[in-house]
Amino acid sequence: MNTTFLEKLVAVQGASGDESRIKDFILNHIKKEQNTWKVQPKIIHGKGFQDTLLLVFGEKPTTAIFAHIDTIGYNIGYDNELIKIGGPRAIDGMELVGRDSHGIIETELMIIENENGSVNYKAVFERTIDRGTVLSFKPNFRENDEFIQSPYMDNRLGVWTALEVAKTLENGAIAFSTYEETGGGSVGFLGKYLYDNYDINQALIADITWVTPGVTHGNGVAISMRDKGIPRKVYLDQIIGIAKESGIPFQLEVESAGGSDGTALQESYLPFDWCFIGAPEDHVHSPDEKVHKEDIKNMIAIFEKLMTKL
Amino acid sequence: MNTTFLEKLVAVQGASGDESRIKDFILNHIKKEQNTWKVQPKIIHGKGFQDTLLLVFGEKPTTAIFAHIDTIGYNIGYDNELIKIGGPRAIDGMELVGRDSHGIIETELMIIENENGSVNYKAVFERTIDRGTVLSFKPNFRENDEFIQSPYMDNRLGVWTALEVAKTLENGAIAFSTYEETGGGSVGFLGKYLYDNYDINQALIADITWVTPGVTHGNGVAISMRDKGIPRKVYLDQIIGIAKESGIPFQLEVESAGGSDGTALQESYLPFDWCFIGAPEDHVHSPDEKVHKEDIKNMIAIFEKLMTKL
Amino acid sequence: MNTTFLEKLVAVQGASGDESRIKDFILNHIKKEQNTWKVQPKIIHGKGFQDTLLLVFGEKPTTAIFAHIDTIGYNIGYDNELIKIGGPRAIDGMELVGRDSHGIIETELMIIENENGSVNYKAVFERTIDRGTVLSFKPNFRENDEFIQSPYMDNRLGVWTALEVAKTLENGAIAFSTYEETGGGSVGFLGKYLYDNYDINQALIADITWVTPGVTHGNGVAISMRDKGIPRKVYLDQIIGIAKESGIPFQLEVESAGGSDGTALQESYLPFDWCFIGAPEDHVHSPDEKVHKEDIKNMIAIFEKLMTKL
Repeated sequence: MNTTFLEKLVAVQGASGDESRIKDFILNHIKKEQNTWKVQPKIIHGKGFQDTLLLVFGEKPTTAIFAHIDTIGYNIGYDNELIKIGGPRAIDGMELVGRDSHGIIETELMIIENENGSVNYKAVFERTIDRGTVLSFKPNFRENDEFIQSPYMDNRLGVWTALEVAKTLENGAIAFSTYEETGGGSVGFLGKYLYDNYDINQALIADITWVTPGVTHGNGVAISMRDKGIPRKVYLDQIIGIAKESGIPFQLEVESAGGSDGTALQESYLPFDWCFIGAPEDHVHSPDEKVHKEDIKNMIAIFEKLMTKL
Repeated sequence: MNTTFLEKLVAVQGASGDESRIKDFILNHIKKEQNTWKVQPKIIHGKGFQDTLLLVFGEKPTTAIFAHIDTIGYNIGYDNELIKIGGPRAIDGMELVGRDSHGIIETELMIIENENGSVNYKAVFERTIDRGTVLSFKPNFRENDEFIQSPYMDNRLGVWTALEVAKTLENGAIAFSTYEETGGGSVGFLGKYLYDNYDINQALIADITWVTPGVTHGNGVAISMRDKGIPRKVYLDQIIGIAKESGIPFQLEVESAGGSDGTALQESYLPFDWCFIGAPEDHVHSPDEKVHKEDIKNMIAIFEKLMTKL
Repeated sequence: MNTTFLEKLVAVQGASGDESRIKDFILNHIKKEQNTWKVQPKIIHGKGFQDTLLLVFGEKPTTAIFAHIDTIGYNIGYDNELIKIGGPRAIDGMELVGRDSHGIIETELMIIENENGSVNYKAVFERTIDRGTVLSFKPNFRENDEFIQSPYMDNRLGVWTALEVAKTLENGAIAFSTYEETGGGSVGFLGKYLYDNYDINQALIADITWVTPGVTHGNGVAISMRDKGIPRKVYLDQIIGIAKESGIPFQLEVESAGGSDGTALQESYLPFDWCFIGAPEDHVHSPDEKVHKEDIKNMIAIFEKLMTKL
């Protein structure tokens, strides 16, 4: 497994709301690589699409992969206080990086326990950092024979999966969505465009899930039967049927909580069917997100299969 | 009051996300019965409508009844754990039914109290049930001179009301919506269709509410002035005016919490006015939902009246 | 600063859901005043717009101001219980006014502490008030050289700002939105109309924020870099750049919580960029909302500037 490009992907900063650079990075990669792909997609972006990016392959697309390009992180508040973007785990001493009007910032998170039991987070730094400055986990990509461990496997691994599928995709769409970690509507306008222009109403969410007692490392990609949202059973049964027939290892996940671009699609006015599919990771929303390489392989394989069969 | 068909309606399984069978059941009933109706509606369903069903009557529809066809229930998680679909009350020993790849399942819910005070629910069964299997309350329809008591009065009674109104409806629409119990957007695409194609922007929500100190059994159908959501006062005043003039017994409900397809319409981008109207029930979200027959009669009567006057 | 009209604006009742009178009041004002404005706007309202009101100025509008016209308040429940509309602060003895079928109501809120520690609110009145009756804070406009203090500065000050900007606006839109205090979709259909008909996808939210350690009285209008929602950084940077260049005093706000019409726009399916800009106030959501007059001047000035530059 050649992970050179994945390592580059996770190093590009792009917390929710600040996705312009990761969008440009992906766009440049596509422009450079697409002549080696089986089919050259229509590339849709710019005005009306904010920092998202859409690819449409072939004349008969039926299904779209949604992969969110944003990450969790922190904003600087007043006096170097840290305010969460999405739901990052706060670990005392964790390294954060960013840039403000005075230059590059490398800092550490400090947990401050107040007398009333509440907790604040501060950036340890010699000067006051500009208000609103965006900080991300410092890149720290680790790999061995079995595992990859790095910040932001969630969801640069989903982005990478989509780009791997793109190499051979003949009919279908890929939507690189934004501000998934803070919720919202970028899947709304992406979905609307695909529905209005291509009659697409089937979605597969390429994202990363949690290792749990029911979903473990190395036992296959997780197909989520539900989280907070519940996919339509008719669509889910079809996906599980294709997965079984394929022989690709997979695990069925059933959760009571958690959401994704799938939940946002369901809550939109669009009649989209959706299903969340992704490798499970340990140390969720920390700089140490850990995923088994076999699960990554199976994640790519099942998306390839589903995009031809659905 | 002939409740034979209502008893059949409540026996058809259809938890949120798994509405294909109840949709087919309602569709078959309509196809069989509509030739006895005053006006034959356009029947809209299929691609782009998931498991919902739309009826449009006459050339000048102005108002749509929304009746959700899904119910609460449980999913099987790992090792026969039970995960809620919507907000069912969990009662130790309550009977649940469903089906997985090995056959029919009849089981009981067991409440397990953990050492830390939290609570889990398990299905008592001799084997591991397939992950994701959908379980519903076991049908148990009871009736006497005054009351009907059964699982899923919420909202098969709303569905039944809409089908009773259909018999004489000349202009108007009926939307049988899905996944109301888990929230979401099926009223979004249903509303959009009605708005774009028929200029309809008035909704009546046919659903079941709670017996409270302010709304009691046998004193009329409840017209909800608010719950979590607040209907537009201009529309509400119009409805209450028609109700007063009609002489049909009704009760005004004012709640701080609770939601419905009305809330989902309000949170959509559609300029729909909406109002929740329904009989009150006791033992909400349990297998023993109990409704007074007079309130049911008045519920049907007020929908008939409003659909001609609004 | 002539505040005669502002005082009239805050006296018009218009709790969420009950905005018909404040809408008519604003509409009449516009009809009377618009011949003195630099450009006469298109005025859009009526069927399909509920109690909202849209103004479109010029041939090349690019940006819309959203100012919500509704306020917080209380509904009467059963036996004169008070149920919150939005999030009003409850202060024992606070004066509330309204009207029901029996006439004008002037009452006081009484806080009742229950044995289990929970709290209820009642209206002190000699008779039972009609269910659902809407009550508002009693008008109480106070002004000195430095400050204005009154109920409903949030958001009649935003409305006033928009109407001040209207006097010289050449290209742009103003959307007077409804039920912001209870959440929902009126910005959805307003935004959709502006996007579909005028290709507008930039929003400025004219609303009032909180005095905090980072944002204080008299130090300029607050430009919010985030609250619960996070605006797109590319758009935010553009706004801050224009503000810096203008020389108008402003303060950068960074909050972890709170929402506005901006959040609702973000959660809609529309690809709108948005930014919240407003004067800070003390005694939020009480009858004593207090705002510095210099911050109000700067609020108007920055909206005028941004509407010409964005």
